[in-house]
Order: sequence, then structure tokens, then C-alpha cells
Amino acid sequence: MNAPIAPSQLLPLVQPRPVPAELLGALTARFGAQCSTALAVREQHGRDESAFTTVPPPAAVVFAESTLDVQDAVRLASQYEVPVIPFGVGSSLEGHLLAVQGGISIDVSRMNQIVSVDADDLTVTVQAGVTRKQLNEAIKSTGLFFPIDPGADATLGGMSATRASGTNAVRYGTMRENVLTLQVVTAQGECIHTGSRAKKSSAGYDLTRLFVGSEGTLGIITEVTVKLYPLPEAVSAAVCSFPSIEAAVRTTIQTIQLGVPIARVELIDGNSVRMVNQYSKLSLREEPMLLMEFHGSPAGVKEQAETVQEIAAEQGGQAFEWATTPEERTRLWTARHNALYAAIQSKPGCKAISTDTCVPISRLADCLLDSVAEADASGLPYFLVGHVGDGNFHFGYLIDPDSTEERATAERLNHALVHRALRLQGTCSGEHGVGLHKMGFLVDEAGEGAVEMMRTLKRALDPKNILNPGKIFTL
Amino acid sequence: MNAPIAPSQLLPLVQPRPVPAELLGALTARFGAQCSTALAVREQHGRDESAFTTVPPPAAVVFAESTLDVQDAVRLASQYEVPVIPFGVGSSLEGHLLAVQGGISIDVSRMNQIVSVDADDLTVTVQAGVTRKQLNEAIKSTGLFFPIDPGADATLGGMSATRASGTNAVRYGTMRENVLTLQVVTAQGECIHTGSRAKKSSAGYDLTRLFVGSEGTLGIITEVTVKLYPLPEAVSAAVCSFPSIEAAVRTTIQTIQLGVPIARVELIDGNSVRMVNQYSKLSLREEPMLLMEFHGSPAGVKEQAETVQEIAAEQGGQAFEWATTPEERTRLWTARHNALYAAIQSKPGCKAISTDTCVPISRLADCLLDSVAEADASGLPYFLVGHVGDGNFHFGYLIDPDSTEERATAERLNHALVHRALRLQGTCSGEHGVGLHKMGFLVDEAGEGAVEMMRTLKRALDPKNILNPGKIFTL
Repeated sequence: MNAPIAPSQLLPLVQPRPVPAELLGALTARFGAQCSTALAVREQHGRDESAFTTVPPPAAVVFAESTLDVQDAVRLASQYEVPVIPFGVGSSLEGHLLAVQGGISIDVSRMNQIVSVDADDLTVTVQAGVTRKQLNEAIKSTGLFFPIDPGADATLGGMSATRASGTNAVRYGTMRENVLTLQVVTAQGECIHTGSRAKKSSAGYDLTRLFVGSEGTLGIITEVTVKLYPLPEAVSAAVCSFPSIEAAVRTTIQTIQLGVPIARVELIDGNSVRMVNQYSKLSLREEPMLLMEFHGSPAGVKEQAETVQEIAAEQGGQAFEWATTPEERTRLWTARHNALYAAIQSKPGCKAISTDTCVPISRLADCLLDSVAEADASGLPYFLVGHVGDGNFHFGYLIDPDSTEERATAERLNHALVHRALRLQGTCSGEHGVGLHKMGFLVDEAGEGAVEMMRTLKRALDPKNILNPGKIFTL
Repeated sequence: MNAPIAPSQLLPLVQPRPVPAELLGALTARFGAQCSTALAVREQHGRDESAFTTVPPPAAVVFAESTLDVQDAVRLASQYEVPVIPFGVGSSLEGHLLAVQGGISIDVSRMNQIVSVDADDLTVTVQAGVTRKQLNEAIKSTGLFFPIDPGADATLGGMSATRASGTNAVRYGTMRENVLTLQVVTAQGECIHTGSRAKKSSAGYDLTRLFVGSEGTLGIITEVTVKLYPLPEAVSAAVCSFPSIEAAVRTTIQTIQLGVPIARVELIDGNSVRMVNQYSKLSLREEPMLLMEFHGSPAGVKEQAETVQEIAAEQGGQAFEWATTPEERTRLWTARHNALYAAIQSKPGCKAISTDTCVPISRLADCLLDSVAEADASGLPYFLVGHVGDGNFHFGYLIDPDSTEERATAERLNHALVHRALRLQGTCSGEHGVGLHKMGFLVDEAGEGAVEMMRTLKRALDPKNILNPGKIFTL
């Protein structure tokens, strides 16, 4: 078991590599105004939403407008053995975008074309810079939607790279289940397709899923083909308050064990409801709460809701409060998605250190309740939200970034939580990725043998170690 | 585009490697009666259900009874750089089990323990030699079931290795979606776990899905943890006859496009129904037919069935004939699963060359109908069945194995079908794997760049090329 590692301790491990002026000249020659070395631009591309102390920004930012742009940028970087870090909207929570070994950022946000809507096949192909909201807007008229919803309006490229999921995953799965095929630029600057548009395939190694979750370390994703789903005939959202977190969690566990195809089931603890009320001007009961959504035929939705209401009542839950109009639902889910910002506003100047454990559903109560007790005992303010239907939840410990003591407390809580989750056969990361923060946890979870296998794969595909180096593991 | 390759042409490409007497001595010393060099045993392990002409059998068969047995056998083989071929029940259709480069077979069928039933988490962990029927029998009392059903009573290890699916995949997914984690013995004889029991994870590379579908070429799977599902409250099966294959296919396409969560939707062409009737003593209408199954609540099943009946009626389908008792359903699905044997019996002494293309659902009619016309024109008898809800179907061309001409005709039809599927953005293999037969097709489908990436991964993890060499691709 590794000792707790504070993020700041990780940074001295890495050696920024020099970015020769010759490379910068070649990039400018090739990309002109698409390449920037302005400090503000570089700084914007050298940070994300993690609580990491800043490291020096990348030496340049290339704004790719095509796969060929990405290929050429990678080829030039490869020639000089300089790191490249793909960038979407910067919503990573784990330090993925930080130039810990120097190098250049490749921003794909201008690659924002919808390549092909294949509504009859329930698939769509987009460039990597398309965001999930943009995608859903673009396909509105087809009667289909893309369900994966990590909260942030992230790019499909970024969501693929971190194997993202979020509120709808309990019913629709994660990026792992929903990416059909990718176009990827390799470390050598070659462009490959990882699969076909067929719904299933046994044709060789599953390169698609090797790249999904590879955090930019094996290739740069330039196009993404994902599954779409018919908009449900009926949608109902409800909130239900509970006398305790335990009662809310037990309701969730029984719902999942019964096989109810609930579309969303999100836990918010009482204190976080209070923050959300203040931030989003709502008047939800300030008690532990489940936010739920049911998708299906009108009869199916009614059936699901009745089943869950019965379970909730047995656990002392209040009557459901319904949000049936699209506007009410949007308001509710926006409030949920803003929980992080609501929490941060509650303690001016703070940063949130976010946990991301996920455990088998039967272990959820054990994992969560002990961690709540520890967090309460620490005195550190926190918020607690969770995609509890999947056994995944997030504490956000609110720290003063300048307080060594608060950071250490947060890391101690995180460490205890992760190792509790691992003892319960869970994972240190349900959806945020490893990035910089969980490298030690990954070894504890997967074992040295499995991590060494990952390193072997990385060395084989990226022998110069130029693709987002220093993330997931050190070589 | 590669020219058609007859299976027999592939065999001269490979060089059997010598198996030193010293290795056989060491295996006997370590494994005693668990190691056999008897010809009958070796021959049984040197063939599968493919139409390949026999190659010399493996030099020995080790009957592993534990993961440690597998590790020790691999370590010994590695020491002498001798190939190892994992063996379950021998139901491969693609030559996976043939010792084309010599070596030893590692039979895992005695590793048939249920390791852990975690009903509260809807997961189960089994040794690799457990078969799907054994698994479902073992968990009968939990109210859960394992849906993946490739027809054969295959082992979970073998099903993982070929990324199997089958009749239920349209609703429940394939092994890709249903394996949570694996225990694997590497080429170096080390034992790793590829993941946790958490429902989702973003903790590092997706080693689980790298091994699912790797056909024994990257490691030997020794334990498999899969998802289970609550037995549906209501199950109804129905058959519906159609005036043409096209009408049956169009019914399927609309059903999928509407998002009906149908559990099974299988096509059988009229001629194959005739063979099935003869073999299974049934009296189904000898017309193109869909076999369907609906899972859900009583109301949900009724709703689904009504929707599909309406679609079918518009396409000229007959009224549904229902099979509601478990016995009737079992009889129907057994007849479906025996279609291959029914077909083979219809032409004494024949072998079936099975195709396995899968296309996006909107392309299914184009792909299937043109291929039916070509097969009819060839004069070669065939059967045609399909997991059409996934866009996957199988022709089985019935050839006299001694007739060069019939084999060439079958390969020509297969080649035309695969390239049609590829033009329609599909795959050469929906569920059987590449094995020996589709190596050329894989390059046509994935491109040389992607296949070279697969080779790079193989070389990195198995530098001595001892794990089922000569399958998927040549190095």
C-alpha cells in the first residue's frame, strides 16, 4: 500500500523536457496563426479543474482544425521528442492537461464538425472537439439523443479519453459502452481507425477500448463515433428526501438489485442541498436526497416510479416531488451539475479535492457511510454527490489551497476512502481518470503486474514517450 | 483488397516449431497424469468446429486444474519457446485451436469451479472452464441469469477469448459489455487481474477489453467475472413467418430503430426452417421466419410484442405463434441452436463454411439480400440464420470437404459477402473471431496501420510469440 501522496509531491518527480526554438519555428511555419506562444493562451492550456498547484504552461498551443493538422503537429513533436498534450475544453479534474514534462498543447476545440449523422443506425460521427451539448443540439430533429452526461460540457474527444460517464450511466453505460469506433493519430503521426460502425465485432484486438480511457497517452483522438438512443416517449424526474444518507443509499441499492431500469439516481447529502439551494435559488428540503429520472413508455415510467416509491417509503423517504416539464427538469439537473460550483462558492477562495471511488453496489453503504463519518470528524467542509446507482460517488473536500494542513487532511481522507473502496473490490476512479493524482492508487488497485503491463503497452506504442507523458503512471 | 484465400492455402504459411523431448519430460514430471501425449487426446485437442483440413495435433495436452497449473505450463513452454494453445470445449468455428505452429494444448475444462456468486451485486466469478449452461444451473436459485448465448455450451474462458455473443446480445450486449474483470496468465507465466468488480472504472488502460477477443494470443484467461441480470418477470417467445426474407429483415430494422428492447430476434430462411423441422421434429411454416423473445414486466412484454406485431403486419407477416411455457421456449431455442447440425445432416458428409459479417442495422437488407441472391445463383446448398437485431447473420455454405470446386465456390461467396459488408461500414466478424480464416479480411477491414498496431501490442506482451501464434494475424 502506498502512503498518501499530496499532489504537490508528485510534481518534483518529473523532468520538463526542452522545447527547441527550432520546433517552435517549424510549428509557426506550418501553422501560422493556428499556433500561439502567447502567455495567456499557454496558461489557459496549462491548467484544468483539478486542485493542482500550477506547473509551467506548455511552450506553445496548436489549434488543430483537421486530423491532418494533428498528424503534422505530432510528427514535428516526434522529430524533436517533445511531449504533446491534447486539449478539449479543459474540464479535467485530475491534472490531465498539465504540462508536467513540458511540451506543446494540441487544442482540438476547432475540430467541431458533425461528420455524419446516421439516425437509421442510431450512431453519429463527430470530430473530437464537438461537445456533448453541441451534439445533442445538432441531432435534436432526429428524435435521438446522446445520453452520456459528465456534468461539464466536455468534448467527445475528452470524454472518450477519460472514459467519462455521469448521471445517465446507470441506464445507458459509460463511454466504454457507447463509443463504437475512433479515429486516432498515433505517436508516429499515422491516422488509424479502431473499428467499424457495426454494433458488435470480433475482428481482432479491441483497439477502440484500448484508446477509450487512455488519457491521451497512447494516441490523440480526432473523430468519435458513438451510439445514440431514441428520445424516451416519457420522462419523469422526481426528488425524494430521506431521514439519513443510509436510507437514501439503501433505497438505491434495492432499486438496482431489483433491476429497475432507472435512468438517473443521484445522491446529494443535506449539506450539499443547502449549498445548491443558495447557489441555484431553489428550495429543496435540506436533507439527504435522491434525484431520479425515469425513461420509457408512459406505462413503463409509471411502473418504475411506483416500484421505487415503494422501496423509498420502506426506508422512510418522503413522497416524491415530481418535475415533469422539460423546464423543471432542466432546472433540477442544472442545479445538480452546479453542485461543485455551489460548494466552491460556499467557501470563498477554496479549491475542491474531488474523490471518485466506485464500488460494487452491495458495498456502497459500507463504503459511503464510513467515509462520511471520517469526513465529519475531520472538520473539513465538503460536498457529497454521487451516481449512486453505479456505486460511484464524489466527495469534494473544500480546502484553502494555501493551507498545507487542509490539503493534508483532504489527502488523508481521500487515501482512506480509496483504500476502503479497494478492500470492497472497487476502484479508485469511477469516471475522472488517473491523471496525476491517482498514480499511487492505481498501483494499489491493479497491482504492479497489471500496471507494468500498461507501461509495456505504452512503451510499445509510444517509444519516445511523447504522448501526454507522466500521466496514469511514470515510466 | 486481398484476393480470396482458401483455408488450405493458409496452412503452408506457418512453420511448426519443434517441441523438445526435454519439455515433454518436464511437463510429465510436473503434471503426471494431468499431462497426456496419447494420440486420441492430442487429436481431440487439435481440431474444432471449423472446416479446416486437419493439421498435426499438439505434442501434448496439459489438463490444468488451477491457475498455478496454467502458470507452470506457460513458464515451461516459455523456457523452450514452444507455443501454448488454450482449450475449453473445442467449439471454435475459426480454427483457433489448431496447432498451426505446433506446441502444446492447455485444456482448462477441469477449472470448472464457481469461485464466487455475488448476487447482491449481480456478478459472478468463475474459473475459465465453467460453461454457460453450468453457470446458469449454478445460479438458478438466485433469481439471476447470465444471458450470453452463443449456441454452443462454450466455456466462459472461450467466450471471453472470442468476444462471443449470440441470440440475446441485441438486448444484453456481448462479452465485451458483460465481462467485468479477468484473471489472466501472461506470456511470462505471471498472474494478473485486469480490473475490479466495480460496474465502471476509469483507472488506467482497459486491460479487460484488451483480453476479451484476443483469441488466446495475449494471455490465457483463468478466471472470468461477468454481470448477471434479474430473471425477467415475464418472458414470451413468438415465431412469425414472412412472405420474403426482405419483409422479415425490414420488420427487424424498424423494431430496432424504434428502440423496442427486444431480447432476441433471429432470422431463419425458409430452406433452413425445412432442415430444422426435419432435424428437430417440428412443423414450423417453411417460410422466412423471425424467432423473437420479449423480456420485462408483464405490461412491458405486452407493449413490446404489440409494437412488433404491428410492424410485422405492415410487412405482410403472419400472426404471431406464441411459445409461453418454458418447455415450449426451450424446444424452440434448442431447434434454433441446432440449425447448424440440422443443415449438416441434410447433406451427409458435408462441412459448413460459416460466414459472420455484421453491418449497421440500416444496411442489413442491402447486405443480406444481395448475398442471398449470390448464394442462390451459385447452386451450393446453404443455411442462413442471423442475430439480425444486431445486423449479424451467418450463411453456412455446405460443402463436400473433398471437393476443391465447392470449397472455392464457398470461399468466393464468403469473400464477396465480407467485402459487401465492409463497403457498408460493417465487420467481417460479428462474434466468431478471426482465427485462421479471416486474417486477410481483417487487414481489408481495419487497414494495415491498425493491424500493425495489433502486432505491436502482441510483440510487446508476448515477445517469444508463444501464445496461440499464427492466429488473428501473422507476425
